[in-house]
Amino acid sequence: MSEKKNMSAKIKERIAALRAQMAEKGISAFIIPATDPHMSEYVADHWKCREWISGFDGSAGTVVVTDTDAGLWTDSRYFLQGALQLEGTGIRLFKEGLPETPSIPEFLIDTLPAAATVAIDGNVFSASAAADLRSRFESRGIAFATDFFPFDTIWTDRPARPEHPVFIYPSEYSGEETLAKRARILKALEQEGANALMLSALDDIAWALNIRGTDVECNPVGICYAFISEKENILFIDKEKLTSELREYCDHNQIITASYDKVSDFLKQLPDGYTVLVDPAKLNEYLFASLSAECGKKCTTSPIAIMKAVKNETEIKGIKNAMVKDGIALTRFFRWLEESIPTGQVTEMGIAEKLIEFRDEQPAYVGESFGTIAGFKGHGAIVHYHATPETDSTITNDGFLLIDSGAQYFDGTTDITRTVILGEPTAEQKRDFTLVLKGHINLSRQKFPQGTRGDQLDVLARQALWNLNLNYLHGTGHGIGHFLNVHEGPQSIRMNHNPVTLVPGMITSNEPGLYLTDKYGIRHENLILTVADTTGEFGPFYKFETLTLFPFDLNGIDASLLSAEEKEWLNSYHRKVYESLAPHLSADEQNWLAEKTKTI
Amino acid sequence: MSEKKNMSAKIKERIAALRAQMAEKGISAFIIPATDPHMSEYVADHWKCREWISGFDGSAGTVVVTDTDAGLWTDSRYFLQGALQLEGTGIRLFKEGLPETPSIPEFLIDTLPAAATVAIDGNVFSASAAADLRSRFESRGIAFATDFFPFDTIWTDRPARPEHPVFIYPSEYSGEETLAKRARILKALEQEGANALMLSALDDIAWALNIRGTDVECNPVGICYAFISEKENILFIDKEKLTSELREYCDHNQIITASYDKVSDFLKQLPDGYTVLVDPAKLNEYLFASLSAECGKKCTTSPIAIMKAVKNETEIKGIKNAMVKDGIALTRFFRWLEESIPTGQVTEMGIAEKLIEFRDEQPAYVGESFGTIAGFKGHGAIVHYHATPETDSTITNDGFLLIDSGAQYFDGTTDITRTVILGEPTAEQKRDFTLVLKGHINLSRQKFPQGTRGDQLDVLARQALWNLNLNYLHGTGHGIGHFLNVHEGPQSIRMNHNPVTLVPGMITSNEPGLYLTDKYGIRHENLILTVADTTGEFGPFYKFETLTLFPFDLNGIDASLLSAEEKEWLNSYHRKVYESLAPHLSADEQNWLAEKTKTI
Repeated sequence: MSEKKNMSAKIKERIAALRAQMAEKGISAFIIPATDPHMSEYVADHWKCREWISGFDGSAGTVVVTDTDAGLWTDSRYFLQGALQLEGTGIRLFKEGLPETPSIPEFLIDTLPAAATVAIDGNVFSASAAADLRSRFESRGIAFATDFFPFDTIWTDRPARPEHPVFIYPSEYSGEETLAKRARILKALEQEGANALMLSALDDIAWALNIRGTDVECNPVGICYAFISEKENILFIDKEKLTSELREYCDHNQIITASYDKVSDFLKQLPDGYTVLVDPAKLNEYLFASLSAECGKKCTTSPIAIMKAVKNETEIKGIKNAMVKDGIALTRFFRWLEESIPTGQVTEMGIAEKLIEFRDEQPAYVGESFGTIAGFKGHGAIVHYHATPETDSTITNDGFLLIDSGAQYFDGTTDITRTVILGEPTAEQKRDFTLVLKGHINLSRQKFPQGTRGDQLDVLARQALWNLNLNYLHGTGHGIGHFLNVHEGPQSIRMNHNPVTLVPGMITSNEPGLYLTDKYGIRHENLILTVADTTGEFGPFYKFETLTLFPFDLNGIDASLLSAEEKEWLNSYHRKVYESLAPHLSADEQNWLAEKTKTI
Repeated sequence: MSEKKNMSAKIKERIAALRAQMAEKGISAFIIPATDPHMSEYVADHWKCREWISGFDGSAGTVVVTDTDAGLWTDSRYFLQGALQLEGTGIRLFKEGLPETPSIPEFLIDTLPAAATVAIDGNVFSASAAADLRSRFESRGIAFATDFFPFDTIWTDRPARPEHPVFIYPSEYSGEETLAKRARILKALEQEGANALMLSALDDIAWALNIRGTDVECNPVGICYAFISEKENILFIDKEKLTSELREYCDHNQIITASYDKVSDFLKQLPDGYTVLVDPAKLNEYLFASLSAECGKKCTTSPIAIMKAVKNETEIKGIKNAMVKDGIALTRFFRWLEESIPTGQVTEMGIAEKLIEFRDEQPAYVGESFGTIAGFKGHGAIVHYHATPETDSTITNDGFLLIDSGAQYFDGTTDITRTVILGEPTAEQKRDFTLVLKGHINLSRQKFPQGTRGDQLDVLARQALWNLNLNYLHGTGHGIGHFLNVHEGPQSIRMNHNPVTLVPGMITSNEPGLYLTDKYGIRHENLILTVADTTGEFGPFYKFETLTLFPFDLNGIDASLLSAEEKEWLNSYHRKVYESLAPHLSADEQNWLAEKTKTI
């Protein structure tokens, strides 16, 4: 508790220092988001300004500080954590998604005096988000500044930008040389009437240039910018990250290197003759504003998004190999878990460590692809729960344990959720477990014609739940990178509309769930690959191939709720899991897995 | 055949007359659509210019005449009919939807000389369609004129505009006085920042003013425009349509009447102070261009679309009553059909007549809500098949007979498709019939949370078909008017994205199908009403209530393909059909219906 008090006192000091800076510049309100200049989901410590100013470390949330007030806007995943972490800081919690909660612009327009100035750091807002804010504020007579950089001064022990070397991702893993990728990119640019591409999304750059890094937790990317054009290709990167090997690779692949800090100067001097494709939702406002008046601009989605999403044969072979390794590690982990729970020594935090331990035994393991979510009983109902020393539960033999984890292997990225039944489930628990499984299976076994969007298929995973007035409020599926970010666009399987259609080569998660507050959470997640089925009178059809290899807990299943087709799918999937993993397991492990994958 | 030759000679003469007019005005190409100044789907004879110039009478299709060439652009529904009707006319068929077919602008840009002029009649193009054409042509240096009206001259025996009286639709049927509706409209306009509404869609006007007409086949609307504002409400209507009763009604409801032809003058003089909401997709280009420079314009969807779609209690009571009447008529019709087929006297065209006969026995029957589609065997696979004397088949006891028909009753509009099994179906036929029925049932019994769009639910009707690489290429559901147009927006249940969510009170069709070329067509169509279900932890849920009352042909069902829930739905639906209709039927009819609705 005294540590907590100490922290909240520190937060108050930091906000006071910020307000002093704001007063000096005549700024009435400052908006602090959770992202970095590359609009990353995960950011390096250097850019954790939102966390530093507020103490709140959830993945989503924006802080607003005015001269007399301060607030954190976050969504339902973080209502609990937000309230806890903001205690005593003077920062109020604004619960997004509730009808009574104003948006940040609504709140500021309502409370600020006339002729006030709202500021952002243009480096950490996308050009489109900044444009939206600008038009909303300026239409109400509020000035909007994008050049306020207070953290350089007030965050005295701010960590430096990460200086880890960037390394080459060889084509035996990537399956396509950067030269070939860039030829495809230039062709796509031509179709859009552009001849250059400004890249700021770290995973887009990593994919296009076949490079990787270790600057960001869980995402194997390096901090850099890239410019691709007919005339030249430039990698803007800190010299500390530029090994001699990388230098040679760049030379060999016609990539010029330049300092990371020179990107804005470069954009300012772009002459006539360049038509640069930029994605205003990905490029930050500062760089967007730097684009010279002389060059042409084409504002649209980067063609890399779809190229990166459609995995090539080498990548598919790689992820399939990674899945075998992950399945072996998971078999050992879940066997250990089963044996260890009776000792009373297993905790939620311990599970995360043990998963790393087992996965680390596998070849080419690099690290977690995201922080493990291990939620016992009611914790499982908190969708983005991360155990902390304060909340860490000991796992006992009487409830549901939800474990969502993933790994970065050099040959692929994994992401799997299993819900473990501990003790004897009630009929209602089995019903719920089975309803979610029905959704998972129905989506997995659905064929669909060319041209189908993920939002058309989403209901298949919710159908059984909806018919009992149940639902889950997150998406059913996200794209996933190849030894890259665990969340990747452009496709998705969600309730919200997304015009992107599913095409062969895309890997998407399939993760329906059910969360009953204070009771339990259920989620069943595999990764599924879109593959071609046959083409007939009604055109080409596609289907899903499940990549993940680990059984669902048979103890949770009420078989009477499964159709014959659903049972057949489950049995055949479990057979495939056993056959794929058994050759790599000990006899004891084989016996354990045989029992877990037995026919129902 | 000689009649056909005679016709094609006439068409050639008409095109020659048009070309003479075009030459006189320096026009290189003229585009002739199928609609009227109100963007109607069904049009009065006066506006059937496309049919007059080409001989093609399909519901969809646009003719383009250049000084040396002529073409009809139509979709796959009309490839066969188009080819047949264009024979010998010199008009070429352009098959829309095929990759090799250019769009009309592509074709004209490609073939016209530089500095050519393309013309339309601005009365029969929406403002948005005209704007799109203008930008495409003008960007290629082709002039675009919207004021070419050749048919007034060359169509010497052109029918006059319909002069049928418009009548009052009393509130015992509409459920809400026009004054109350207009108060709601003004409130909706205010939210959009407008204070006036220019209406040209005939069903929007009919709904807002509680009037109906008989100017258009199948759609009970009258030709008129309306202007609704805080200051005045004006009905622009030909004086022949204005009965003394309607005049009195208008006086009583604060509606001024003005001549139909004065609408453009009115719009030209609108002063500052008016902000007029117009839907550029519904208002014709001529009137849109007439809007004065002084008044404000707000271009968006008319608020009437959603108000009209959400039926009130009186309308719902009305349609339910209409469904009982329709069910009685259908029982008598299908009983007659079963008895009459063995006589060898039943033809596709005869079916349409007989349906009218049986429905006409019911109180408050007004007419068909669309031309009956009766397709035997391969004809059933032509989605918008309409039997003609040349194609009319005699129904025999060995195939599928698809019958899609609907009625306008004073208390509601119906639309139903049943597929009748004649003779002994093959296993494949039963499978197909049952797969389509599974889709129909799955959609019918699906609950869904508030906020769900039709495009999210569409897959439920296709799920079983898709898993066998089968599909149907039309929408699953369209909205339907209340004693109004059989096709009504804004909601739909389709593969294409439509942002409109389904809300209680909306009536939508549920009509999955399967069409195997030259073999048979299957469609199962009911109308379904969105109603509230319970509200719980996951918010408000909605469900569908089926309104249509007539059994599906049990002879087509392979019960082994239906799940327990699907069988339960079917049996319960058939029970409801029997219980709703039996009290109104003779003992013989009851016995017949009992057999048709027996439990499976």
